[in-house]
Amino acid sequence: MSKDERRVKHITPKTEDFSRWYIEIIQKSELADYAPMKGMMVIRPYGYAVWENIQRLLDQRIKATGHVNAYFPLFIPESFLQKEAEHVQGFSPEVAWVTMGGKEELEERLAVRPTSEAIIGHMYSKWVKSWRDLPVLINQWANIVRWEKVTRPFLRTTEFLWQEGHTCHETSEEAQTETLLILSLYKEFVETELAIPVISGIKSFREKFAGAQETYAIEALMSDGKALQMGTSHNLGQHFSKAFNIRFEDRNQNLQYVWQTSWGMTTRLIGAVIMSHGDDSGLKLPPRVAPIQVVIVPISMGNWKEDVLPAAQAIEEGLKKVGLRVLLDTREEFTPGWKFSEYEMRGVPLRIEIGPRDVKAGQAVLVRRDTREKMTLPLDAMASKVPGILEDIQASLFREAETFLRENTRQAGGYEEFKDVMDNQRGFVKSLWCGSDACEDKIKEDTMATIRVIPLELKSQAGPGACVCCGKEAKALAYFARAY
Amino acid sequence: MSKDERRVKHITPKTEDFSRWYIEIIQKSELADYAPMKGMMVIRPYGYAVWENIQRLLDQRIKATGHVNAYFPLFIPESFLQKEAEHVQGFSPEVAWVTMGGKEELEERLAVRPTSEAIIGHMYSKWVKSWRDLPVLINQWANIVRWEKVTRPFLRTTEFLWQEGHTCHETSEEAQTETLLILSLYKEFVETELAIPVISGIKSFREKFAGAQETYAIEALMSDGKALQMGTSHNLGQHFSKAFNIRFEDRNQNLQYVWQTSWGMTTRLIGAVIMSHGDDSGLKLPPRVAPIQVVIVPISMGNWKEDVLPAAQAIEEGLKKVGLRVLLDTREEFTPGWKFSEYEMRGVPLRIEIGPRDVKAGQAVLVRRDTREKMTLPLDAMASKVPGILEDIQASLFREAETFLRENTRQAGGYEEFKDVMDNQRGFVKSLWCGSDACEDKIKEDTMATIRVIPLELKSQAGPGACVCCGKEAKALAYFARAY
Repeated sequence: MSKDERRVKHITPKTEDFSRWYIEIIQKSELADYAPMKGMMVIRPYGYAVWENIQRLLDQRIKATGHVNAYFPLFIPESFLQKEAEHVQGFSPEVAWVTMGGKEELEERLAVRPTSEAIIGHMYSKWVKSWRDLPVLINQWANIVRWEKVTRPFLRTTEFLWQEGHTCHETSEEAQTETLLILSLYKEFVETELAIPVISGIKSFREKFAGAQETYAIEALMSDGKALQMGTSHNLGQHFSKAFNIRFEDRNQNLQYVWQTSWGMTTRLIGAVIMSHGDDSGLKLPPRVAPIQVVIVPISMGNWKEDVLPAAQAIEEGLKKVGLRVLLDTREEFTPGWKFSEYEMRGVPLRIEIGPRDVKAGQAVLVRRDTREKMTLPLDAMASKVPGILEDIQASLFREAETFLRENTRQAGGYEEFKDVMDNQRGFVKSLWCGSDACEDKIKEDTMATIRVIPLELKSQAGPGACVCCGKEAKALAYFARAY
Repeated sequence: MSKDERRVKHITPKTEDFSRWYIEIIQKSELADYAPMKGMMVIRPYGYAVWENIQRLLDQRIKATGHVNAYFPLFIPESFLQKEAEHVQGFSPEVAWVTMGGKEELEERLAVRPTSEAIIGHMYSKWVKSWRDLPVLINQWANIVRWEKVTRPFLRTTEFLWQEGHTCHETSEEAQTETLLILSLYKEFVETELAIPVISGIKSFREKFAGAQETYAIEALMSDGKALQMGTSHNLGQHFSKAFNIRFEDRNQNLQYVWQTSWGMTTRLIGAVIMSHGDDSGLKLPPRVAPIQVVIVPISMGNWKEDVLPAAQAIEEGLKKVGLRVLLDTREEFTPGWKFSEYEMRGVPLRIEIGPRDVKAGQAVLVRRDTREKMTLPLDAMASKVPGILEDIQASLFREAETFLRENTRQAGGYEEFKDVMDNQRGFVKSLWCGSDACEDKIKEDTMATIRVIPLELKSQAGPGACVCCGKEAKALAYFARAY
């Protein structure tokens, strides 16, 4: 690409075409690119660096709660998938099948894992013998393949990366405690690190994981008013332990089936970061997961290498010393103005500009990506002040998203009002529901909205009242939304 | 498993049956287990924790030399593999093929990546336009599938984990510099972190990577006298850039093909750690990569929870504070003696035993796994002394392996001597070679030995002399060995 071609890239405004804005941002900021195979993507270094930060921060939490990592095979024999009836029904339409190894046709097809309950269940049946072996608290970081019809980078791709936890417990209560522990861990992680507020609760039967007893989820609201499932935590009950014969001798020497959970979050989280915080100028990355937290752009005029560069390098060093991820961009083939736009588009939380006059005045100019606020700071205050500014940006992104979530969560008592909100405003609609599949299906058909979650704390607040759809007695208060 | 079954596990002695010893150690120490699909394994938490340490320490080095991580798709269309003639010939017999997605047969088969040059080459042809885009220095951590006939846990499995670097450069010289930079990085990593000395050099044409111009490798000697390839660094020349049309406008505005390298190390490294350092009692893990560096075993007699436990916990805290990975095993269903054997078998570098009398004397007993040396240390000296002892263990494991390598590297001038060494002593044999495929093939047929590397520093020392096989003029001094 010649210098001229590297001009500031134009992005379709978010309000004009949200989907196009989303795709353009991903490609222009080099988070990801399309692979030549339908539905697959390449996570480019800038996007992968976000994922590495997510991995590190999530992995710490997973380990701090007593879990350990392991690695299970990519392939699952077809007969294993078939052992849990609901599971195979849910997943087999989405499976990529390996049928040949070298030049030979395989006797049994191998599924490229769409999730790992089946293969892990088989291994657990070998490993778990006694209550002394429990709990089993294992997580794995892996790639997953699901043959999806409609795909979109990060949100739904044929292959994606995730972590999947798979645990075994002595009692039903322990499994339930684990399920909810992870649900709250996920919520805390997403809110703290990604600055995205979420609602959490239980899924309806229609929306639960194929093979689970109950599925819990955290859901966020993207800035186009559609909901995005951010993570799920399943109480598997004894569904898989019975299918895979995972039994243990309990404290009274009786053979029992273990109680299990599974839970996961994926590279979809990167899509959520883009859609929650981004604007017409591009990404806004939360400082905690931004690959570059601070970019330093020296104003390259005159003798800048002598006048400005040493001061810029001193800032870089000082900030790196306090543990920040800093880039000093000294390239001469790009103008400072081009760099400003480029790093805005890439969502770098804080920019530091420094020119000859700044150096003389012993200061530099800081520009926040989120508010575009400019401030002047003495050079010797950088290392002490910048970390706090980044924390403030993180908090401010969260507050903004929280306000958006609050303003776009509405109550609807009647069905006409419900449909009206879904057609004109989207967002979450809180309504009473009778608990029937029929109403859930009708609402989906009429409005494209599904039950995202039934919040745990609101479950008891349900009655008395009438279902928003059929008017019969309500069993729960649910959050409805159109979703990705 | 009942308490009685949990007795100290017997391992076949190394000298009696090396292969069986290797497999038993892996299973009994719970590094890995066999998956139900032929040739596949599960990396259990203890083994995966070793891999996480390897990943972290290697990833640091890869990043410190300017590389960044990314993620490319698992599947590669068959037509892509076919673009580089040698590449497809080398890999197609080993490919697992996806032929179905959901219920539909695919128009084109997809290879489950046996290595990623082809898909990455395709993406690079989209990304690289100008000399300003160079060098491209990308690495990925990923799973790889090769349909192997004979498999062995960690050493050769149908699926394995690795990192693969893929770089593009402006000139042939830069690509060569990169190839050798990585070769030396690999050597330094393996010697420093895994305590395994290696020899390094160039591969013969027969042994090079399918599609490379030249392959460089590091090779270690396992304690049964067989060589193990530990890592490879390939100078790809313009083979793939021509096949995938990766061109850039150079500084003189001429279109040129880029010069490339690729390089990788795998979960095989864990196999090398087992085979290099282990003994009849089990694993000996180098402290730098050991999941547990120090295990504390309280002697559980009498009022041990009051008399001993607090002191044991104080040791644990003190050692964790100085950054060590410590386990305090307080389980009462196992005796101290059982624990001693168990952690020896698992290769924990240092054990600390503490009983009531020790507490009274203000001390504890330390036992090194490598030398079994016992020493008594005051409780208040733990945090200051133990890190040094672990460093000493690391250094001592390396020295021992280095002595073994030196003592098992022999010169052979004549072919009878060569064959005799291979039959009776194994190890590396340094011999002159004429450079012909014919001699390389004959040596392999007669002795099962292959050229492992031609050391760079010895290349110039080759002549004058005669090939160990045919007696014609030698072109190089090569290291031969039987290999895994």
